[in-house]
Amino acid sequence: MKTIPTEQQILAWFQSLSNWGRWGADDERGTLNLITPAKRLQAASLVREGLVISCGRTIGYEPTVDNVVPARHFMLSSGEGEPAVSVGRTGAADAFLLQPHGVSMTHLDAPSHSHVRSDPSQPWTLYNGKSARAITTAQGATVGSIELAGGGIVSRGVLLDVPRVRGVPWLEGSDPIFPEDLEAAEAAEGVRVEAGDMLFARTGFPRRRAERGPRPPSEGIPALQAACLPWLRERDVAVIGADTGNDVMPAQYPSIGLPVHGVGMGAIGLWILDNPDYEELAETCARLNRWEFQVVIAPLKLSNATSSPVNPLAML
Amino acid sequence: MKTIPTEQQILAWFQSLSNWGRWGADDERGTLNLITPAKRLQAASLVREGLVISCGRTIGYEPTVDNVVPARHFMLSSGEGEPAVSVGRTGAADAFLLQPHGVSMTHLDAPSHSHVRSDPSQPWTLYNGKSARAITTAQGATVGSIELAGGGIVSRGVLLDVPRVRGVPWLEGSDPIFPEDLEAAEAAEGVRVEAGDMLFARTGFPRRRAERGPRPPSEGIPALQAACLPWLRERDVAVIGADTGNDVMPAQYPSIGLPVHGVGMGAIGLWILDNPDYEELAETCARLNRWEFQVVIAPLKLSNATSSPVNPLAML
Amino acid sequence: MKTIPTEQQILAWFQSLSNWGRWGADDERGTLNLITPAKRLQAASLVREGLVISCGRTIGYEPTVDNVVPARHFMLSSGEGEPAVSVGRTGAADAFLLQPHGVSMTHLDAPSHSHVRSDPSQPWTLYNGKSARAITTAQGATVGSIELAGGGIVSRGVLLDVPRVRGVPWLEGSDPIFPEDLEAAEAAEGVRVEAGDMLFARTGFPRRRAERGPRPPSEGIPALQAACLPWLRERDVAVIGADTGNDVMPAQYPSIGLPVHGVGMGAIGLWILDNPDYEELAETCARLNRWEFQVVIAPLKLSNATSSPVNPLAML
Amino acid sequence: MKTIPTEQQILAWFQSLSNWGRWGADDERGTLNLITPAKRLQAASLVREGLVISCGRTIGYEPTVDNVVPARHFMLSSGEGEPAVSVGRTGAADAFLLQPHGVSMTHLDAPSHSHVRSDPSQPWTLYNGKSARAITTAQGATVGSIELAGGGIVSRGVLLDVPRVRGVPWLEGSDPIFPEDLEAAEAAEGVRVEAGDMLFARTGFPRRRAERGPRPPSEGIPALQAACLPWLRERDVAVIGADTGNDVMPAQYPSIGLPVHGVGMGAIGLWILDNPDYEELAETCARLNRWEFQVVIAPLKLSNATSSPVNPLAML
Repeated sequence: MKTIPTEQQILAWFQSLSNWGRWGADDERGTLNLITPAKRLQAASLVREGLVISCGRTIGYEPTVDNVVPARHFMLSSGEGEPAVSVGRTGAADAFLLQPHGVSMTHLDAPSHSHVRSDPSQPWTLYNGKSARAITTAQGATVGSIELAGGGIVSRGVLLDVPRVRGVPWLEGSDPIFPEDLEAAEAAEGVRVEAGDMLFARTGFPRRRAERGPRPPSEGIPALQAACLPWLRERDVAVIGADTGNDVMPAQYPSIGLPVHGVGMGAIGLWILDNPDYEELAETCARLNRWEFQVVIAPLKLSNATSSPVNPLAML
Repeated sequence: MKTIPTEQQILAWFQSLSNWGRWGADDERGTLNLITPAKRLQAASLVREGLVISCGRTIGYEPTVDNVVPARHFMLSSGEGEPAVSVGRTGAADAFLLQPHGVSMTHLDAPSHSHVRSDPSQPWTLYNGKSARAITTAQGATVGSIELAGGGIVSRGVLLDVPRVRGVPWLEGSDPIFPEDLEAAEAAEGVRVEAGDMLFARTGFPRRRAERGPRPPSEGIPALQAACLPWLRERDVAVIGADTGNDVMPAQYPSIGLPVHGVGMGAIGLWILDNPDYEELAETCARLNRWEFQVVIAPLKLSNATSSPVNPLAML
Repeated sequence: MKTIPTEQQILAWFQSLSNWGRWGADDERGTLNLITPAKRLQAASLVREGLVISCGRTIGYEPTVDNVVPARHFMLSSGEGEPAVSVGRTGAADAFLLQPHGVSMTHLDAPSHSHVRSDPSQPWTLYNGKSARAITTAQGATVGSIELAGGGIVSRGVLLDVPRVRGVPWLEGSDPIFPEDLEAAEAAEGVRVEAGDMLFARTGFPRRRAERGPRPPSEGIPALQAACLPWLRERDVAVIGADTGNDVMPAQYPSIGLPVHGVGMGAIGLWILDNPDYEELAETCARLNRWEFQVVIAPLKLSNATSSPVNPLAML
Repeated sequence: MKTIPTEQQILAWFQSLSNWGRWGADDERGTLNLITPAKRLQAASLVREGLVISCGRTIGYEPTVDNVVPARHFMLSSGEGEPAVSVGRTGAADAFLLQPHGVSMTHLDAPSHSHVRSDPSQPWTLYNGKSARAITTAQGATVGSIELAGGGIVSRGVLLDVPRVRGVPWLEGSDPIFPEDLEAAEAAEGVRVEAGDMLFARTGFPRRRAERGPRPPSEGIPALQAACLPWLRERDVAVIGADTGNDVMPAQYPSIGLPVHGVGMGAIGLWILDNPDYEELAETCARLNRWEFQVVIAPLKLSNATSSPVNPLAML
């Protein structure tokens, strides 16, 4: 029943699932175009309890087996020194070195993060045909920067809790989510993902980490099977966010790279939220028996950037 | 009419305006306690057009006269190289060095950012008496970290457009906002700041920069006069954000440091949003003739940190 | 025969081995004062083959079990992009994040790196009584900066090859070097360490790493037993450099910190070279049967710094 | 008399001055091959006073008009906090962000720093034909890394003090040094630059900065006129170091980039020392009336790097 697509099928999807040109020849915003004022009004109407729940992970600074290049934190002043004033106010300040695409930081990918082609004689491009060569070492992402989402992303969010439907606490490493899983969760939750929604697909892997400890990525990370791509395109999802890196690890299609990031970002123009944490949200949804909510993602307005760290918030 | 407080008055406010103990002896969240579920429901109800407007500044990487220590951007991979695959997906990634308390990055201050005392024989403390010595070089902010707001801040926002009331495009350098300005704006806009609100106090200085170019901070930055502090306490504002550094520059009370950051954060437990940009929001509010909206601030969950860069979003 | 000193003996050495005041009340350069022009002439006279050998380790950027916080390398431009000119010259550039006191970077410690006291009622001080509180988060090392050696260190170097004398390829983890080992090496090599010399004490641990791979520091690192301290003081060594971190790991005296760094730097004013690599040098010395040479250490002139990465060179 | 070469002449030098193949088809070390053991013995013999003089600039962390992207310094621990031990030893540590090719840091360029071609139909290459595309964002300089000089550079140095011969304290901005200046200095000093030497060409610009203060690079920086290139090749200089960026600023040949860095590094395989400071050295040479000495340059063994900060030392 659950069909695993071949590499050739995935390569064909670069054309068949494409949104290139759908919002104009110059469009860079892709599926963000699906989020209308009406959608935002619908999202706001889902705030009924006055709750707000973070879906961002804590950013620490110590290396772990699942994050060997963590963020770095530097204090520029502290509370240990002698202030310049004897009374009143003094203070402390800090600086951060952040690498958002790291394996454990919650971040939003910018279009410039994924470069695709299905024909080796063609140049590498971003969504809608922008040249990948415009992402340079010297200038950064001169096209497809995270600034495209700098105005903020606000829409209806839907949590599809796959392990809950399967009756397990979490998906184990490399266990993929298929479209059938998404539809089973829709049925169980009485909800349907619609155009412009943010789809939060839970694997529960952050809970596994909390209970069992970190482990090397080489031991497997669950996420979306490539077979979900036609489904995401058909439903016109605006933002996809499985609570891992969205592509199953180890890479299932090493000779063509990561298919969800490839077909998703490059062909569909889909925005991808990597490494969120839905544990508190899932508990709240289960308690309220309601799986839809207002979501706000506020990327930093980083110039020429392929990513931003984010702290996605769900309001319900 | 507009009374400039003396240093002694400001020092006395550390006691008379204090919220220490108001939410328990161990409280670290201060005025965030004022944001109730009911407040968040009110905020959501203000979304009537389905609009979302960013109040964050763009983060660039070039030094300017008003920001000599800008963020740094490093590309870890780009679109210029030879990918490991011949078709499918490859990509680019980056890293950032961010110093949020810099003079031009939109950021939220954590309680650990301000250390206060009014008696030179006493130790320096944060809000509610936490020891400032717990903010160390080696460990960072072991108390008062930005993680206290990691769950997200969602409330009603009110824009008080001071230059609009005064009939000027922006306030010039060192021109302070007094409580009388705030009340004049309330009257002109037909709105009233209430408990748990986020107060967005517009100076228009970002517009000045856009039209006239950057200039050294030593030439003056408008913000809130310390006289606003009793007003902010009386109204029980949860988050204050003038669209500069909130304290007038050059420092008006150099021998006691920055009074809004001092009395505000240290005594009142007030949360401060520094360096937002309200230009697009102000135009929209004027067009809709509506000055209240839902606001979402989503600080990164940075461990032991005195700050986070943020991109505050207003929905209306 | 090999006597392990007690904590109390080591604490007593802070006075009995002290060089405080020896070169004046304001001196900050400690044992560098022992390197005279005559000493430098002697060093130059040891260049007889015209050879130069590096004693620095390679600086990589990947985390390893023995270096979880490696240096970071960022390309600012590369050879992959499109140059601004069509012929002539273009280029590439980079940036580095370096943490010299890390467990594997060859570096020279500045006096500001070690803060000592033997009486808990006294303040912490550097060598010659400078206050440790002058090393601040905000300003760095306002005393005892690596700039004190910015003029360069050039002297006679002596390699004492301890594993060679013991007939082993390297010392295993936590195996300490005693004064008896140093004297046995002197005897075997026909050389004597004299005032103003740089003493290169070989454990061979870098060879172990090359042959057996990295392992966690918790499994042990060989270095100098504290018993060497009176010997180093008596011989008036100017720079000590065992080819690890100079203090045995795990710490042998955890309640008083690292004794070689403590008594050595704090009382004697000794300069410490951490993490050099003597493998090529040791082979050359054995081949030439000559264990003395000219050494040049050229610390970067980093302002207010507790350290500099270095690449020590031996000429013979 | 002093002839300014045309762009076409400079482009022709890429062939006529080339050392490609001279030390083998695979050679990457270029003019470092000219430094023989005999040369190093000669260098050591020049140490007659036992003096050592640094030719490195101090590295500060504050932006200036001539260095808008300075190094950054972060304290990881300081002397302000509470140590883990009550007596014995504790300490402070730091980290540095360094961008060696910046306008004022003394650094050695690696071959990977300069990419050249004189025919627009040919690929960009380093010295000896290595592909410039091997310097990638993701991996850094996989050829031509500074590690090529990681073994240390030790040779005879010669200071040619051009402003002394001209009777001025320093050369003003954009004032170029011609071969005639070098030969006039040789004559005045009674010295001759020979194969394998390091040529220290003084403009005195650091003295100008010390006396007159920093100024924007756009106002001009003196250095070597391209006309010196045949002379450098004829004399077989191993390392050239004018006390600025070696190429006159503003760029004299903007359509072909920097000629000294281009023809010098790319064709001749010459090693370039940028931004040294010869003020103390020049005074000492004048006092001793001796303009030759031993020089040691000890680049950090930075993997895959286009540069290293250095502190060159002259011994005499």
